[in-house]
Amino acid sequence: MSKFQGNRLNGIKPYVPGEQPKQDNLIKLNTNENPYPPSPNVAKAISSFDAEKFKLYPDYDCTKLREAICQNLTKYEGANVSPKNIFVGNGSDEVIALMFMAFFDSGNSGSPILFPDITYSFAPVWADIFDIPYKTIPLEKDFSIDPEKYCVPNGGTVIANPNAPTGICMSLSDIEIILNANTEKVCIIDEAYIDFGGTTAAALINTYPNLAVVRTFSKSHSLAGLRVGYAIASEELIADIDIVKNSFNSYTVNCLTLVAAEAAIKDREYFEKTRNEIIATREDVSVSLRTMGYYVSESKANFIFVSHPDIKAEIIFNELRSKNILVRYFNKPNIDNCLRISIGTREQMDTLIEALC
Amino acid sequence: MSKFQGNRLNGIKPYVPGEQPKQDNLIKLNTNENPYPPSPNVAKAISSFDAEKFKLYPDYDCTKLREAICQNLTKYEGANVSPKNIFVGNGSDEVIALMFMAFFDSGNSGSPILFPDITYSFAPVWADIFDIPYKTIPLEKDFSIDPEKYCVPNGGTVIANPNAPTGICMSLSDIEIILNANTEKVCIIDEAYIDFGGTTAAALINTYPNLAVVRTFSKSHSLAGLRVGYAIASEELIADIDIVKNSFNSYTVNCLTLVAAEAAIKDREYFEKTRNEIIATREDVSVSLRTMGYYVSESKANFIFVSHPDIKAEIIFNELRSKNILVRYFNKPNIDNCLRISIGTREQMDTLIEALC
Repeated sequence: MSKFQGNRLNGIKPYVPGEQPKQDNLIKLNTNENPYPPSPNVAKAISSFDAEKFKLYPDYDCTKLREAICQNLTKYEGANVSPKNIFVGNGSDEVIALMFMAFFDSGNSGSPILFPDITYSFAPVWADIFDIPYKTIPLEKDFSIDPEKYCVPNGGTVIANPNAPTGICMSLSDIEIILNANTEKVCIIDEAYIDFGGTTAAALINTYPNLAVVRTFSKSHSLAGLRVGYAIASEELIADIDIVKNSFNSYTVNCLTLVAAEAAIKDREYFEKTRNEIIATREDVSVSLRTMGYYVSESKANFIFVSHPDIKAEIIFNELRSKNILVRYFNKPNIDNCLRISIGTREQMDTLIEALC
Repeated sequence: MSKFQGNRLNGIKPYVPGEQPKQDNLIKLNTNENPYPPSPNVAKAISSFDAEKFKLYPDYDCTKLREAICQNLTKYEGANVSPKNIFVGNGSDEVIALMFMAFFDSGNSGSPILFPDITYSFAPVWADIFDIPYKTIPLEKDFSIDPEKYCVPNGGTVIANPNAPTGICMSLSDIEIILNANTEKVCIIDEAYIDFGGTTAAALINTYPNLAVVRTFSKSHSLAGLRVGYAIASEELIADIDIVKNSFNSYTVNCLTLVAAEAAIKDREYFEKTRNEIIATREDVSVSLRTMGYYVSESKANFIFVSHPDIKAEIIFNELRSKNILVRYFNKPNIDNCLRISIGTREQMDTLIEALC
């Protein structure tokens, strides 16, 4: 750190993203990337984009992509929404960061926001950098979330559903308990992994003006490299996020990303095929590992959360690393004996299981 | 606004980007875009990128692009820097926003930061959204910046050089007066337009640990649509910006943007050809308009700042708009009788001059 740091950085511990090794022969199961390439229509959309237009600023309203997202939600997810209910950003991390700024009070004037003690580890970092007080609620012993514990005074709530790194999903009725507990503060439901088996809360935005759902193209649409995420919420909440965006960086989404994401979300057949294959692989791997004596969470995500009664997670992590298989190990209380393993192709998971034998 | 807005949004007036009309037959001289397409190597780099890799997160360290930027600075701009002196972000607006967070104190504990009353209009917005106190210093009557006026206690300084929307450039010796006036606080020099005739302060980072220079690929490299900007500063300042980035959004720069920007900066010949053409066009247009009785600033940017002694700027703006020529009008004190006109192609500027006759 330099002597020039402003007071905002006092005590800040930044998020540490999963390792992105430059080594080619690795089986990379550490950052929940999709093992399949994106829809072939993505490459077509990019190659047919006129490179001369790179000289122009992109559409900061992301109009066509918001329309495509909206059509998809209406057609396949039973959510009666309009493009005014959609905000698009530079990855769901940016979308959530902007929402923390838009909806949660800084300083000690309000109640703390609430999130689970074990969840996406960026949550406390955003709270700290934006000076938002927070309180963590312990998960149950089986790693589930008890919604009743969120029915206390709060400045907002943040739930990843399915939760990370456990993969465990909440029911919509449980989410509604949290939404009803404090109708004056925003509840963010981070659905980064929802496409792999959970039930989306998107349709609830018309009932709950305090609900904001966040999604990403990084996982189920195989576009982690292109950076695009979005929020689904009431028109009023979306307008608030827009105010924050336009007070931070007006043009956050790249012109190629806009056409790529549009092509991806319109290719429903490809999406379903690859998504279903990942779900089927996850179920098979879970059965195999349980047979081998491992605890495996009931995951609805594109990863599993695994531990062994006799072998320490860190030892398994290092052994896999030596065999060129990279998984994620969190050296944190309560989960320091667990590994998060992304679901790869059938072949990659066979190699993993062989390595674990 | 919704009732859910957090206290951070109290009184916030977001930045309003220049109009991005969806109309095709416009001569668009309102957002300082480059009239020429990017280097042909950009399209080649994008089309040879393996679309399968979109499934993977991009290199969050932007290693290769930082190396290319560094080589360019060393070879052509006399700046003896290493990749550790470079930070890459999602457009220079994001880079500056992260720097405001990294270096300027929030709340009323410190001295206000200083910037000119007439400058890039995002400066007060960033200060407000991050709760950073600020004071504006009036420009001189000829729109120049008097560095002595910045030699007062402050929490940091922000100077666009060339300044926007005037296009007027400061000398390096004037910038050094500001850098020496407060060696304990960071001075941000926003060089978005430096390639069009100014002298960069980049080489000064080895002398002044409080200097941070910001650049963009949007203007002189014709990549506004791809979103990439960078900072040049001491290793310690760059590390601080990295802390903020990793507390906000770890993966801000898209995998295609990384290869596109690298291709653009490596094609020096194309860069010089298009840049020189814009400079030559600007000089010719300035002479023509002065002959016609207009005041035209001594611009070192890819735009000119123009007013007429007898005709109100707003009237000229509307008349040009009716002729399908879009320029930028700022309805703000001291500059409400001026227009900012981006430098287009020779043909576009001929049409403009004809319309103004």
